Amino acid sequence: MEETQCRSSKKKVVAVVGGGLVGALNACFFAKRGFDVEVFEWREDIRKAKIVRGRSINLALSHRGRQALKHVGMENKIVSKGIPMHARMIHSLSGKQSPIPYGKKGQYILSVDRANLNKELLSEADTYSNTKLNFDHKLQDWNAETGLMTFVRPDGSQVQIKADLIVGCDGAFSATRKQFLRRSRFNYSQTYIPHGYKELTMPPISGEFAMKPNFLHIWPRNTFMMIALPNLDKTFTCTLFMPFDEFEKITTGDEVIRFFQKYFPDAIPLIGVDALKRDYFQLPAQAMVSVKCSPYHIDDKCVLMGDAAHAVVPFYGQGMNAGFEDCIVFDEMMQQFNEDFSAVLPEYSRVRVPDDHAIADLAMYNYIEMRAHVNSKWFLFRKHVDNFLHFLMPKTIIPLYTMASIQTNPTITATEHERRHTKVINHGLLLSAVGAVVGGSYLLIKGPPNVNRVIIPAEKVWNRLVALRTL
Amino acid sequence: MEETQCRSSKKKVVAVVGGGLVGALNACFFAKRGFDVEVFEWREDIRKAKIVRGRSINLALSHRGRQALKHVGMENKIVSKGIPMHARMIHSLSGKQSPIPYGKKGQYILSVDRANLNKELLSEADTYSNTKLNFDHKLQDWNAETGLMTFVRPDGSQVQIKADLIVGCDGAFSATRKQFLRRSRFNYSQTYIPHGYKELTMPPISGEFAMKPNFLHIWPRNTFMMIALPNLDKTFTCTLFMPFDEFEKITTGDEVIRFFQKYFPDAIPLIGVDALKRDYFQLPAQAMVSVKCSPYHIDDKCVLMGDAAHAVVPFYGQGMNAGFEDCIVFDEMMQQFNEDFSAVLPEYSRVRVPDDHAIADLAMYNYIEMRAHVNSKWFLFRKHVDNFLHFLMPKTIIPLYTMASIQTNPTITATEHERRHTKVINHGLLLSAVGAVVGGSYLLIKGPPNVNRVIIPAEKVWNRLVALRTL
Repeated sequence: MEETQCRSSKKKVVAVVGGGLVGALNACFFAKRGFDVEVFEWREDIRKAKIVRGRSINLALSHRGRQALKHVGMENKIVSKGIPMHARMIHSLSGKQSPIPYGKKGQYILSVDRANLNKELLSEADTYSNTKLNFDHKLQDWNAETGLMTFVRPDGSQVQIKADLIVGCDGAFSATRKQFLRRSRFNYSQTYIPHGYKELTMPPISGEFAMKPNFLHIWPRNTFMMIALPNLDKTFTCTLFMPFDEFEKITTGDEVIRFFQKYFPDAIPLIGVDALKRDYFQLPAQAMVSVKCSPYHIDDKCVLMGDAAHAVVPFYGQGMNAGFEDCIVFDEMMQQFNEDFSAVLPEYSRVRVPDDHAIADLAMYNYIEMRAHVNSKWFLFRKHVDNFLHFLMPKTIIPLYTMASIQTNPTITATEHERRHTKVINHGLLLSAVGAVVGGSYLLIKGPPNVNRVIIPAEKVWNRLVALRTL
Repeated sequence: MEETQCRSSKKKVVAVVGGGLVGALNACFFAKRGFDVEVFEWREDIRKAKIVRGRSINLALSHRGRQALKHVGMENKIVSKGIPMHARMIHSLSGKQSPIPYGKKGQYILSVDRANLNKELLSEADTYSNTKLNFDHKLQDWNAETGLMTFVRPDGSQVQIKADLIVGCDGAFSATRKQFLRRSRFNYSQTYIPHGYKELTMPPISGEFAMKPNFLHIWPRNTFMMIALPNLDKTFTCTLFMPFDEFEKITTGDEVIRFFQKYFPDAIPLIGVDALKRDYFQLPAQAMVSVKCSPYHIDDKCVLMGDAAHAVVPFYGQGMNAGFEDCIVFDEMMQQFNEDFSAVLPEYSRVRVPDDHAIADLAMYNYIEMRAHVNSKWFLFRKHVDNFLHFLMPKTIIPLYTMASIQTNPTITATEHERRHTKVINHGLLLSAVGAVVGGSYLLIKGPPNVNRVIIPAEKVWNRLVALRTL
């Protein structure tokens, strides 16, 4: 075991566990404040790696996320390598494509490459002289009294370091969080959904995008769904979502093609028959988990951010953006409380837990809706109702997705808005000619502070109207 | 490290982790089937211990629990040492006492001493020649492939044993369950409620019970609540439930008395002023956690039962009883599937998860209700409505608590019944003269199979009518 590192400076040491998106961004925030920042990542440096293991290839960056990048001077660099998506493009079974804008003209979200974004953030963190990136360091344990952390290296050796603040940004399966689970009165849940996902690549055709590039393409098919996001190399990354037991039913290349012929026929020539037969079996379907916990901190010693605190299912498209927002919110509190960890950490939990839980609930709610009823007809219908009402009464009605992705509104939680919004939409529907649809209303259930909140529609018929807000 | 124990017999080895109530009972079930049973308990043998550490002193044994004891020939022995409670006794603030029966004449639940019940069950397990009780064995780790388990002894030495089946009955903080958390697609939640509890003793007066013995005494005071169960030594164990922050407000003996004068004045002379001032501060308030998970098994190797699978908050009074019922249900499946673990374990998860989650939901629901609104007036009113309707229409209406505790009805889950029952009660209320109370109805929300279900009342006004079903 190496000797415990003794920092000679008087500056406080902030250890960021995890060099993923939120960890790397957070390193910049803490470095800007003048702390001695140590980032510990258990993988090798992805900037040097040949193959980047891990999760989905591209992500939708929205206003929430961009604000955080702006704080560390990264917004323009990242935006320049993103592809604007001004609208969803809904693919019907017959192959008809119908756009649904994300907001008013000029509003858009960005398709960004996860690996590139991560590399850029690490390089940015590296530019601060008071930041050190430590790769191949796997957190084994840490002590909540002393702040002493123990890491294991690939050769089995151990390294110890003492930090004044430990910031756990190590994802949905956070090693930092294990210490939280050993303490009394820590609330925690991990919920896997029955759906898995597989990623497929849609190559360029004659050097150009195979579909219109400035859209998030969606094939809603009730229980099944496919989406596609554009990449800079003019490919699309298609993500197929379906229940694990459906994935398991498909065992041969011919069955893949038959399945696509039935549900996504227009995608077959674009992905290519041979590629489809081959790529479908390259990786097993990946699981999706929703993680909630509370509180996010232990004393003045440790705080969780990003997926370590609140992994969400991807059906609301706000996972990364909420993690980035964590960094801003924490930084603002550092300013407000003069970098006093004993004041900042409890306040961060107090403010952030309900907001993050609301995002997690909405994501799960969208998943449940999607699973049950959403196809291209309902999708289009509901979106048109939403947008029509927004057009009529822009102050009162903001489609929920527009609010979450385009605006930043700290005074109203997304669920509160959902409730109000749905109520109004509902009334709108009742006033409109859709006479058959009555009685729909949402209930926002608030349990005791530590109990999960759940949003549910009161009427089954209403389910059929609720579109996939996510995407 | 000791050598791995090699059992010479050809019989399969079942390792029961945990020698508490469910573990000890389960050992009897497996021993009866002829397995080589090894029980591993991390504490010392409580039959020899001077002080029994651990949880609440007495428990309410209901029909569900008695059925399981009957299967192993223990029912009469345990019942003879229990005190029948035929009714709740509601204490109003003025000191008025009003009984509310648990069911029809002759139906009752039993107040039993936890420590004695545990000792009796361990001694019963000990009578089987094919059962070995191993105390001071703390589970460190186990291997899901091989069934190899590693235990640590108090002297730090390790013991390893290979089991064909591992049965985790090691409570809400189960060590067995840790292996489950390392696997993908295991759903888990632990939720602490803001209430804690403290136990106080009410001594006999002139050698007799200080209150009527054959009742479960309840002082419902909205956010605060106290209950008292009779013991064989003619004491009552009083349990005071309140939010942790309220407990923390009381810091001196005089403040304890002032608090009791305000909320539980009739209990002060019965507990005694000096005892109250002293005993209140003997232990910190204890936390209560609700644990849900799914599935309950790993392959054909390991299964969780009792609190390890489904710890509940105590406000429905069915925690131990549900754990005991686990043992019967598993045993019946062992019969049905000819002791084929690879068939029994998945079936056990499939059948038992929804039932246990329903019990957990009801317990949490009762907690939420209690916390918000229940005082002695509403309690009495609702119970009277329940029982009056049950009296009028015994086939249609069975008060929920009566069903859960007195009957065993495997074809209808408690939540299903709750929904139907409430619907009818509701109609009853509407039909009755309570004109102001309208529009109440429950919603049973069913998410996807792996997502928690939640039961919620649709109308706030209805909350006021829902009594504390628990107790």
